[in-house]
This record gives sequence, C-alpha cells and structure tokens, in this order.
Amino acid sequence: MYSAGDVRIENVPDPQIIESTDAVIRVTRACICGSDLWPYQKMEHSETGRVMGHEAIGVVEDVGADVRTVKRDDFVIMPFAFSDGTCVFCHDGLQTSCIHGGFFGTTEIAGAQAEAVRIPLADGTLYPLGAHADDALMPSLLTLSDVMGTGHHAAIIARVTPGKSVAVVGDGAVGLCGVIAAKRLGAEQIIILGRHADRIALAKDFGATNVVSERGDAAVERVRELTHGYGVHSVLECVGLEQAMNTAISIARPGGAVGRVGVPQEQTIPGSEPAFYNNVTVGGGPAPVRAYIEDLLPDVLEGNIDPGRVFDRTVGLDGVPDGYRAMNDREAIKVMVKP
Amino acid sequence: MYSAGDVRIENVPDPQIIESTDAVIRVTRACICGSDLWPYQKMEHSETGRVMGHEAIGVVEDVGADVRTVKRDDFVIMPFAFSDGTCVFCHDGLQTSCIHGGFFGTTEIAGAQAEAVRIPLADGTLYPLGAHADDALMPSLLTLSDVMGTGHHAAIIARVTPGKSVAVVGDGAVGLCGVIAAKRLGAEQIIILGRHADRIALAKDFGATNVVSERGDAAVERVRELTHGYGVHSVLECVGLEQAMNTAISIARPGGAVGRVGVPQEQTIPGSEPAFYNNVTVGGGPAPVRAYIEDLLPDVLEGNIDPGRVFDRTVGLDGVPDGYRAMNDREAIKVMVKP
Repeated sequence: MYSAGDVRIENVPDPQIIESTDAVIRVTRACICGSDLWPYQKMEHSETGRVMGHEAIGVVEDVGADVRTVKRDDFVIMPFAFSDGTCVFCHDGLQTSCIHGGFFGTTEIAGAQAEAVRIPLADGTLYPLGAHADDALMPSLLTLSDVMGTGHHAAIIARVTPGKSVAVVGDGAVGLCGVIAAKRLGAEQIIILGRHADRIALAKDFGATNVVSERGDAAVERVRELTHGYGVHSVLECVGLEQAMNTAISIARPGGAVGRVGVPQEQTIPGSEPAFYNNVTVGGGPAPVRAYIEDLLPDVLEGNIDPGRVFDRTVGLDGVPDGYRAMNDREAIKVMVKP
Repeated sequence: MYSAGDVRIENVPDPQIIESTDAVIRVTRACICGSDLWPYQKMEHSETGRVMGHEAIGVVEDVGADVRTVKRDDFVIMPFAFSDGTCVFCHDGLQTSCIHGGFFGTTEIAGAQAEAVRIPLADGTLYPLGAHADDALMPSLLTLSDVMGTGHHAAIIARVTPGKSVAVVGDGAVGLCGVIAAKRLGAEQIIILGRHADRIALAKDFGATNVVSERGDAAVERVRELTHGYGVHSVLECVGLEQAMNTAISIARPGGAVGRVGVPQEQTIPGSEPAFYNNVTVGGGPAPVRAYIEDLLPDVLEGNIDPGRVFDRTVGLDGVPDGYRAMNDREAIKVMVKP
C-alpha cells in the first residue's frame, strides 16, 4: 500500500533469515483485516510503501539457528503480533505488549499479504499445528491469527460469563467472532448492533438472539427495551469510532463492562460522565491472540465453532486490491487470500 | 450553599418523616468532602440554595411505620447515597445505582452539614452500629460514609491484590484512604503522587512506599523509574481532572487498571490510544460504600486501620463556611463537623 486506496502487487526480494531467532514461512492463507481499511481510507503517501497483512497460516520454509519450537514443513498460525514468549508481559499472557515484540504489516515489519514472510522471534510467535492440517479447517484456523482471538478478547474484557446479557457493537468479522465468543462463554442474550443483512444472518447463525439496526439514541433505546430498561452486562465494541464507543457506554448497565477491540480513531474516549456515574468499566486493546489459540483451538478442531464462515470471498494475490475495495464498500465481510 | 464560595448557616424547619420508609437522624458527626469543593468553586447562583453534606454519623430520632432494621437511639452510619437495599443493583452490591436511590446534599435531598437529616429508604441506607459507639472511633467510622469506602472502591476497581504495585494519584482524603486500602489489600509497592508535605507524611504513615511530587511527563518518568520501566499494575485516580487521568493512564503498566473515583470534570476520558495499545482498563465511579462497610468495619473496630486521621480540623456548624475555605486553600485535608 502506497497511500489511501493505492494497493499494488509487486515483485520484491524473497524474505531471508536475518536474526538467528527468525523463521521464514510460505503463506498458504492470508486475509484482509477490517483494521487494514483504516490505512486504506487514510494513509498518506509513502515512497517505499507498506507490505500489508497481519494474519496468516503458512508452512515453515526456513528457521534460524536458535529456533527450537518450530521446524521446516510445520504448519503454523502467525498471530498479528510477534513476541518473544519469555518477557514479563508474555508470561502474563499479554503478548501484544511484549517488550521485544511488534506488529506485522507495519512500515518496519513486512506483512503477510505476500508469498512469504519473515517471522521475528519465531519460537514465541508461531503456533505450530504439526505437519498436516485439514484443508476444510483452514479458514477457521486462519481466524485464530486475529479476528476470532480479537472477538474473544473483547468478550473476556467485557467479562462475559454464563447467563450474562451481551451486546456486540459492529457486524464486521470481529463483531461476528465476538458473537461466537459470547455464545461460547455462555451468554444468555446476545444483541448484535448492525445493519447489513448478510452479516446479521451470520450473526444469528453464530448465536445472536436479538438484532438492533437502529443507530445512536434509537439504538440505545432499543437495547434498553430488550433488557428490562437496564442495559447489558457486557458490551463488545468492535468498531473503533466515537459514535460506536458512545453507544457502547450508553447501553452498558450499571456496573457493566465494555471490551473494546476496534482500533480507536480518536484521542479521547467519549462518555466520561455516564461511564463514571454508572460504574461502567472500559478496557481492551490489541488482543493477545497468541495466548488465546490454546483455548480456542480445540473448539475449532472439534467443530464446535466455525469462525471461518466470516470469509465470504477468496482471491489470489492479484485479487488483493479489489479485495480491499470490496471490503471497504461492504460488498464482502472478509476476504481470504490464497497466494 | 447559594453559589460558588457562598456558604451560609441558616435556621430551617426540622426534617420530618415524609414516607413510611424514612428515618430522621440527629447528626453527631458530619464533614466536608473534597467533592463539595467542585460546587464551592463552580456553582451557579440558586435562589433556594442547597443543603450540603453527604457524610454523617448520627443517632436515629424517628422512624417511619415501615422501617424495620433501625430503631430510635441507634447509632448509624449514613452513606453518601441512599438506596432501597432490594433492587437488582443493590443485590449486586452497587447501591449507588439503586433504581429508587439518590444522593444526599443535592438540590432534591437535603444534606448532612446540619443538625438533623431526613433519610429516605432508611432500611436500605443506614448501617446500624447499635446503641453505643466509642467516641475515639467516631472519625474513622465517619470515613465509612464516603472517603474510606471510596478509596477502597478505587483499589478494588484497579484490581489491587497481594504483591501488586500501586500508584495513588491525588493526596486528598480519598487518595490517603486509597493508600490505606491498597496496603490493606496487600499491595507491595504504593506510590503516592502528591505535593503537600502534611498529606505526604500521612500517606507514608498509612503505608506509601514512594512519593512522586512531580507532575505531568516528569511524574510519569519518575513512576517508570520506580517500576523497572513498566508502570504500576493498579492506579487509583482520586482527583477527577483531565491531567490526573492522563497521568493515571500513562503510569499504568500494560494490562493494568485504573480505578477512578475523582468526580470527572470533563466530558471525555483522555488517553484513548495509550489506554488501548497498553490494554489498560479504566473503571470506577460513585463507590457503593454501603456494601463496603461490612468489609471495612471490623478493621476499624479492631484498630487495624485508622482512616479518621484524615481529619485535621474540627468545627461546629458555624465553622462550616471557613471549613470550606480552609479545604479549598489546602490549609486542611478534611474538616469534621460536630453540630
């Protein structure tokens, strides 16, 4: 990506092992993220461009001399952040704050919308799936690199537990995975706030019990009607815009919690006073998906959850620019890339 | 109070039982709250004025026909909020969101800087201490009506547990009680951010292990130096101003939590991006002190904690206007009123 709207497919040198803790993976599946749409809408021109993409499954092609936990030909999940797996924050299960870590698809570290990627700190970063993996499971396994773990993070931070009422703000891939996560954690009522028929249908399949398609004050009123006037225990904010956060805080019941995973597009959090007077907690951030793979993988392998259904279009590398356009135009929920 | 800076002592009709669930108490101890200083600085002129004060200990003088749990001559603690004790939020221990509740010292409900107060919903509101109480314990018991419970709330929301590092932003009575609460909950390191010598000395007595008197970026840097560069697990925000919240978010370590109990003076919470990228949670609000009395009372009665030391001046009712001035000028930490 060279600037907003300017996505090009180019031939670049193959990635190489630089540090002895690196690996190189051949990408078998990657995808376009809702968060990639922020630079697609706003990025200023860059001479060198940015190799996008932070979600992938691949096969290990090469490892540095100090890599111990993955080996050539392993199938691996590449979480959107790399992490050493040994620092104090990795030990706390917050790999997205790893002292030596960082994020793929930035100006510093090339991303996964490519044939191959260099993986720094491979031992702490990659999650090995062994040498074989069922092709039919690939879409769902791919979501463990970001969106499913991110929806789960929102639900954890929003304190979803059995019997709770939950609202999910946003019907993108993360919001839909948030519905799966809320259901999986035992929520009794799951209200999806969104307005795209295809996404809403999928949300219902995933376990949403109510749909609110209104916005702003009307949405708040509708959620209150659905919750005895109180609001919900847990809100998953999966957008990142001020209006979404305002809604999220307004529909939380007193003592409730908002888990936000939409990348914030503003410097301040709105609703300071309602959040305070209702003792509503606001938390969240980049999900430590590396930590969550352990929890979520068995349910994917056993078919209890099927988050791969968020992919409704598959393209080759040449189709990536149009994939951005399709997601930005809300023509596609989430686009999978098969290089 | 008729407007900012205009505090008068007036003779008014004695409070009477209005509802059958009311009680009337004779106030034996009341006080001036740091939050009373916001209207003292900002209140617009009111024709009828506002009977201030939301913290008291008193003796029950009269009860309505439906009052069951307190009786004439009982010593009682009056929390700053009244609550029915039976609604869904009271059952959750969040009495400050009681469906039928409200706050003392507002334009609707007369306050406790007075000889007597009408207590709505007396059964749910008042905490009976029996017929006798040791005079020496009165100051500490009085803090259970607000500041000690409020400091405890900040610590609970900030997830203080044994071994954690804690910072307390603000050296007012609530901040000082926050130090007591953090120590009581087992914090290993307690950093007080403040700059008044008398308050800092008291904070150290209460268990503060470090003092940071810088402000803004310098304060953030100093806290990082004291915490291996990481920041603290738990921040108690006991001020309510934007700069204090900015500092609070900036000194929390990744995955940390801010418990805010300073009444917010702005519409937005600053630091949306650092809070997000560090997965810092921001929560808090009016403390359900009614729920906390149960936890804290034994430690007061056994002398394990002595929050009454935050009172460094005692006045009669006639001394209340000067008490406001003294607290506003930072001449007194907290002023007790003996009507």
